[in-house]
Amino acid sequence: MADYDPNNPFAKILSGELPSHKVYEDAKVLAFMDIMPRADGHILVIPKARARNILDATPEDLGYLVGVVQTLAKAVKKAMKCDGLTVQQFNEEAGGQVVFHLHFHIVPRMAGVPLRPQTGEMEKPEVLTANAEKIRAALGA
Amino acid sequence: MADYDPNNPFAKILSGELPSHKVYEDAKVLAFMDIMPRADGHILVIPKARARNILDATPEDLGYLVGVVQTLAKAVKKAMKCDGLTVQQFNEEAGGQVVFHLHFHIVPRMAGVPLRPQTGEMEKPEVLTANAEKIRAALGA
Repeated sequence: MADYDPNNPFAKILSGELPSHKVYEDAKVLAFMDIMPRADGHILVIPKARARNILDATPEDLGYLVGVVQTLAKAVKKAMKCDGLTVQQFNEEAGGQVVFHLHFHIVPRMAGVPLRPQTGEMEKPEVLTANAEKIRAALGA
Repeated sequence: MADYDPNNPFAKILSGELPSHKVYEDAKVLAFMDIMPRADGHILVIPKARARNILDATPEDLGYLVGVVQTLAKAVKKAMKCDGLTVQQFNEEAGGQVVFHLHFHIVPRMAGVPLRPQTGEMEKPEVLTANAEKIRAALGA
């Protein structure tokens, strides 16, 4: 497996070089809106510690991260009023990974609605902002 | 969300009423081959504790489970000599869940090879047995 690349986009979000629509942040974890969502309210949850994916994360960082994934999954379900959630975590390019910093996808799902295709098209910022606000509100409630 | 159904197929695997091709077992977790694999070496990792999905699992059970998922992901990668891994966890029918006992999918991926479609066709038992043996060997090594 390749080494961690400190210039990956999520490292730049963590350093503040790139912006994001933040949903949650603490000392160890950041969550933000996926800018190419497969469904409305699709978020990403990442550790602040360096890890390429599940294969090199420390068990401690991964365990903490997944605790936050669970909390956020509940908040996303409440905020987006969805029927279900698809949680995905991709490892290496063959596994579907595009950004090489460990991340979990939480994707809200409505009955009978397939995931949006991966077109590479960016969501409108105002939609991302609105969904981030909804999820933050559900977290706080 | 519906209550946990104690008659779901994974509860029956845990109780021994249904067979499985076991890959790993400890006091809290069981892992076994998916009988309708999306790729060779596709396994499922489940807690022994009752949980419908990520929305009702205790944080303790989920945290422990994910630690085992990580260990098994490394073993699957080694055993199956794959290029990557796709980890999936489905919640409620709309989220892709078919069996209502919390489970993580670990799916080996080869570069350029899409996931097999979900045809509902069962894999040959001898293939599942051989892959389970490979993964158990990689775990022990």
